[in-house]
Parts: sequence; structure tokens; C-alpha cells
Amino acid sequence: MILDPETDLSFTRTLNAPRALLWACWTTPEHIRHFFVPKPYGIDSCEIDLRVGGRFNTVMNIDGQLMANQGVYLEIIPQERLVFTDTYTEGWKPAADPFMTAIVDFADAEGGGTTYTATARHRSAEARKGHEDMGFFDGWGTVATQLEAYARSLM
Amino acid sequence: MILDPETDLSFTRTLNAPRALLWACWTTPEHIRHFFVPKPYGIDSCEIDLRVGGRFNTVMNIDGQLMANQGVYLEIIPQERLVFTDTYTEGWKPAADPFMTAIVDFADAEGGGTTYTATARHRSAEARKGHEDMGFFDGWGTVATQLEAYARSLM
Repeated sequence: MILDPETDLSFTRTLNAPRALLWACWTTPEHIRHFFVPKPYGIDSCEIDLRVGGRFNTVMNIDGQLMANQGVYLEIIPQERLVFTDTYTEGWKPAADPFMTAIVDFADAEGGGTTYTATARHRSAEARKGHEDMGFFDGWGTVATQLEAYARSLM
Repeated sequence: MILDPETDLSFTRTLNAPRALLWACWTTPEHIRHFFVPKPYGIDSCEIDLRVGGRFNTVMNIDGQLMANQGVYLEIIPQERLVFTDTYTEGWKPAADPFMTAIVDFADAEGGGTTYTATARHRSAEARKGHEDMGFFDGWGTVATQLEAYARSLM
């Protein structure tokens, strides 16, 4: 995938856990709640229908304020790539004002562990900038740290 | 799929050709050029990478004025459902201002032939209205008629 610096945000980290386990964490509601939102915040619910076009819906709980995020999976390559977005809800209903498309890539790292790449693609430079200002790198970085710690607790 | 009358346009017709053949017509560049644009207009080129996220790019030729349409396939159920959109280009790059998501459904018709349903989903009621005013029913209806005639010429 060729990134567009105008509209994309992306970072890569090595996580000290096998990618099969990281994949399971990313695709199972019971696991998602342990890492998907930077603590101390959490999620109240998570629905996953792990197929192309299937729902990936979460409700975040930020100090009691509920934020519903509805989306679908666009591409699913087990243990390798997960693509999801709020651009559609189930049945390919287009959202009026979508925010982003997320691509999470998993690869074996040299010397063990997993090379983990999180990418957010946006419709415009303004949307990218807004996401960066909102704290993309801190937020998704914290999620990666939490994911690694949670996955290791399962090993 | 549940339609949203606010934002969707859809019609169903019975075409007098088997759905395997109609599917082949819809998914092969050499066939596409025979029916995809209401005559006397045509297409100058068509690129298809028939996989989820793969490109479906066409260049229409309207009296010498070229109109490029770039998009991807979202869902592919052979001989049953084809979903494509200009919401993304290859690599899940979001388009700045997407127009629509198209869903073409094929089913066996009672008594032979194919029940053919063409649906266009939009992000807003305004977009749906714009597409209807632009001639969705006439245009896609003509495409269905041309598809049927072309498919029958191959039988």
C-alpha cells in the first residue's frame, strides 16, 4: 500500500506477542474491551460480524458519556490485515459524513514478535489534520501498548 | 438488504438470459463495453481486478468528452451480487467526494431468466435526488435493456 502523506496517518511498532494472538484480540469482542480505548476509559459494548461488509460496532464510555461508533469490515486477511471503516454501516449503507478508514497490518517480526502497523486513511487533508490534532499517535499508540500487555497476559 | 427510500434508488427487472451469463457480462472488460453506457455513447477503457478492494475503473466517452470513473469492488458473490463504489480507489484510499455505491443482484427468475435488481445507495437525500434527476431510472434501465440484448447475442 502506498501512503498519501496528505491524507494518511500511520505508524509501525514491534509488539512482543505472536500475530495469531494479536489477531484474535482484534477480532473478538471479549478481547477488544481490554485494549481498544485508552484507559481509564472503556467500551460498554462491541458487536463484531467478522466478514466483508459485516458490522464492527462499539460504544465507548468516556466518563459516562457514551459514544457509538458504527462501521463495517472492508477486508479481512486472517492474521495479516484488518480493514474497517465508519464509511458504511451494514448492507453497504453509506454514512453521511464518514471519518476514516483504518488498516491494521500484522507481520512476523525478525527475531520474534509482530510488526504491527496502524494506518488511518482520510478523505481530505483537513480530516487527517483534525485526527492528528485529536491525538492519533498518542491514542493509537496507547492502544498498541495496551494490546501488547493484554495479549501477553493471555500467553 | 433493507432499502432507505430517503437515500436509495432501486429497480428490479426480469432479464431473459441466464444469470451466469449476465454475471460474466458484468465482470469482464470486453463484455462491459457492449452495455455499460447508454448508446450511442461508449467506453474507451475498462479495468477490472475482480476481488474485494480491486479496481473497477472505466472511462466513458460522451461525444468525445472523456469521463473517468475510478472505483473498487466491495463485495463479490459470484452470479449473485456485485457491489462497487467510487467511495474508494485501490488500497482503500477514500475519495474526497464519493457519489454512490452500486449493488447489482442476480437471482433465478420463476419460469426462467434472471431477476435483476440494480440499486444505488447515496450518502444523503440530496445526492439521491440529484441522481434521480440526472436520469437514474432511464440510464440504468437502458443499461439493463442493452445487457439483456448483448447477453442474448452470446447465447
